[in-house]
Amino acid sequence: MSNQIRIVVDAMGGDYAPAETVKGAVDALQENSRIRIIFTGDEKAIRAELAKYSFPEDRTEIVGTSQVIETGEPPVSAIQSKKDSSLVVGLRLVHESKADCFVSSGSSGAVLVGGQAIVKKIRGIHRAPLAPVLPTAKGPSLLIDCGANVDPRPQHLVQFAVIGSIYMKSVCNIENPSVKLLNIGAEEEKGDELRKETYQLLKACPEIRFEGNIEARDVPYGGADVIVTDAFSGNILLKMYEGVGSVMLHELKDGLTSNLRAKIGAALALPSLKSTMKKFDITNYGGAPLLGLKGLVVKTHGNAKAKEFKNTILQCVTFYDEDVNSRIMEYLSKQKQEREATEDGA
Amino acid sequence: MSNQIRIVVDAMGGDYAPAETVKGAVDALQENSRIRIIFTGDEKAIRAELAKYSFPEDRTEIVGTSQVIETGEPPVSAIQSKKDSSLVVGLRLVHESKADCFVSSGSSGAVLVGGQAIVKKIRGIHRAPLAPVLPTAKGPSLLIDCGANVDPRPQHLVQFAVIGSIYMKSVCNIENPSVKLLNIGAEEEKGDELRKETYQLLKACPEIRFEGNIEARDVPYGGADVIVTDAFSGNILLKMYEGVGSVMLHELKDGLTSNLRAKIGAALALPSLKSTMKKFDITNYGGAPLLGLKGLVVKTHGNAKAKEFKNTILQCVTFYDEDVNSRIMEYLSKQKQEREATEDGA
Repeated sequence: MSNQIRIVVDAMGGDYAPAETVKGAVDALQENSRIRIIFTGDEKAIRAELAKYSFPEDRTEIVGTSQVIETGEPPVSAIQSKKDSSLVVGLRLVHESKADCFVSSGSSGAVLVGGQAIVKKIRGIHRAPLAPVLPTAKGPSLLIDCGANVDPRPQHLVQFAVIGSIYMKSVCNIENPSVKLLNIGAEEEKGDELRKETYQLLKACPEIRFEGNIEARDVPYGGADVIVTDAFSGNILLKMYEGVGSVMLHELKDGLTSNLRAKIGAALALPSLKSTMKKFDITNYGGAPLLGLKGLVVKTHGNAKAKEFKNTILQCVTFYDEDVNSRIMEYLSKQKQEREATEDGA
Repeated sequence: MSNQIRIVVDAMGGDYAPAETVKGAVDALQENSRIRIIFTGDEKAIRAELAKYSFPEDRTEIVGTSQVIETGEPPVSAIQSKKDSSLVVGLRLVHESKADCFVSSGSSGAVLVGGQAIVKKIRGIHRAPLAPVLPTAKGPSLLIDCGANVDPRPQHLVQFAVIGSIYMKSVCNIENPSVKLLNIGAEEEKGDELRKETYQLLKACPEIRFEGNIEARDVPYGGADVIVTDAFSGNILLKMYEGVGSVMLHELKDGLTSNLRAKIGAALALPSLKSTMKKFDITNYGGAPLLGLKGLVVKTHGNAKAKEFKNTILQCVTFYDEDVNSRIMEYLSKQKQEREATEDGA
C-alpha cells in the first residue's frame, strides 16, 4: 500500500517500557490502517507484550536489539558505544529510509543527539529544535525550542521562528501564525542580550508574523501560536507547566476526598472537572518533534503511558502527510536563492 | 515607641493604586500596632482613600509627591528624571534612614534600578537579587533571582545561594536550608555554560547545603528551600507558576458553573477546593524582597490587591526583626577576613 507510513517505535524507551509503548502502538495500529509499526528492542519482551492484544500482524514488525540507553547516561558516548540499542537502531532505520518516523520515550539527550547525528539535519539548518505543542485556553501553541540547544545565537532563534511557523501552518492549519519571543517583559528593550538582539532580527524577518514579546504568565492563556525561546528557558517553561498542573490536580483530588461533603460534591462536579482538566492535559497532544531533520524524530515524555504514545504515533501521520520537512527545505532553498540574487545584484 | 517599624508605602504604584495600596496599609496598621506607615504619593487622593476607613492617625503619615513612574517607562531615565515621584521619594526616605522599609507595586524595573541606585547595595554584594517566596506542596521555597540581573556570572549565582540561605534561615526559620540549582536535568553535567560553572562553584561553597540540580517540574512539589537561578529563567518560572495557576482556576470555575449538576457539586465541594487553592495562592506570601541592599525594599505584584499588600507589609516586620541585612553583612565581613587571612598566610 503506497501511502502506508512506517513508524519505528523504540519499545525500550521510557519509564513504562515496553508495556506502555507496545500498548500505545497497538492502539494506534487499530485506529489508523495506514500505520505500519516497526518495534526496536528486546524481541522476547516485545512479543510477550504483543501477545496480550489482538493486532494486525501484517503491519507489525520487530527488529531485535540487545542494548538499552538509560536516562542518566551521557548522550554522546551512549550513542557512540551502544550501536545495538533500540534507539540507535531505530534512528538508523529512518536514516536509511527503511522507516518514515521514529518515536521514543527514552533519554531526551540521547534522542536529541542521536537525531542530529544519525538522521542528520537538513542542509541549511543551524540547529534542530525540539518543539512541543502546549495546550492553552485558546488551543495549541508551539514552544520552540525546549531541549536541544543550549547557548544559542540570535540567528538560531530566528530560524526556529520560521520553522515553527511552517509547522503550525502545515500541521495545525493556522493560516498566518503569530510569533512571539518569550521574554521577561512586553517592551522591546526588555531582557538579556540574546533577547534584545533576537527581537530586532525577528522584527526584520519577512517570513513570519512577529508580534513582539510574550511573558510566561500569558502563555497558558494562548497568547501566541509560536513561542520562540532558547532551549534552557523553554525547558523551564514546559516543565513548570507540567509541574504546576500536576501538583494542583493532585492537591485538588486530595482536597475533594478529604471529607464526605467534599466527596459528594466532587462526584457531582466530576464530569465538568474532567472536561476542564482534559483541555490542559499535555498528553493529549502527543510528543514533541525534533524539527529540521531529514526524517521525523519525535520525543514523548519519559513517563508517557499508552495514550500519549498512541497520540504521538497518530500525530506522525499528519506530519508525514503535510510533508513539513519538504516545506522547510523549500523555504531554505528560496532563502538561498534570494541571498545569491542579492549577491549577484550587488 | 522604640521598636516601631517605619514602612513607606508607594501609594501610587500598581494597577489598583491608590485604593488597594491604602486599604492594604490600613489593614496592616490595624493588625500590628508596631507598624507606622508613611505614604508617598498624591496627598489628596491618599486622604480620600483613608477617609473611607477608621485607622490609627498617629501611626500614619503622608509625604506628598507630584509624579508617578508608569510601568512602560525605561527605568533608568524614569528614576533620574522623576525626582518627585512616589517611588523615588519613598526610596530616598529609606536611604536617609527616615524609614526602615519601602513597599511598592509599581514598575518592577524602576523598583529594582531605584533600589540599587538610591538605597544602595551592601558593600561586597555583586548584584541585588529579587527573591520571591513560592508556595509549594511542602511549604515555602525561595526563588533567587527572578528579576533584577540579566546575564549574570556564576559568582553572582553563588552569592545568591548564600544570601538566600541566610534569608530562609532568618525569616522562615529553616535551620539548614537546602539549596538547588534550577536546571534542565538532574545530572551534574546538564545545562548551559552558566549552569555547568555555577554547579561546580556551589558544590565547593562551604556556607550552604547544596543538593544539586532541580528541574522546574519539581519546584511546585517543594523540591528545595532555596532555588538558585539567573533572573531571566527565574522570571519565566515565577510567571509560569502564576499563569498556569490562574488559568486553571479560571477554567475550573467556568467548568463548575457550566450546568446545574456541576453547580450543586461545586457548592458542596467548595470549602475543600478553597483550602487547596489557598495553599498555592502566591498572594498569601506577600511580595518579593530585593536582597543585599542597605535597607529593605519589597516589590509586590503590579496587580496586587489589598490582601497581598497587607501581607507584604506584615512580612516586613519579620524581616526587620530578624535583621537579615546585618546577617548578610556579617557573612560578607567574615568572608573578607578569611580571604585576608589566606593572603597573609600565603
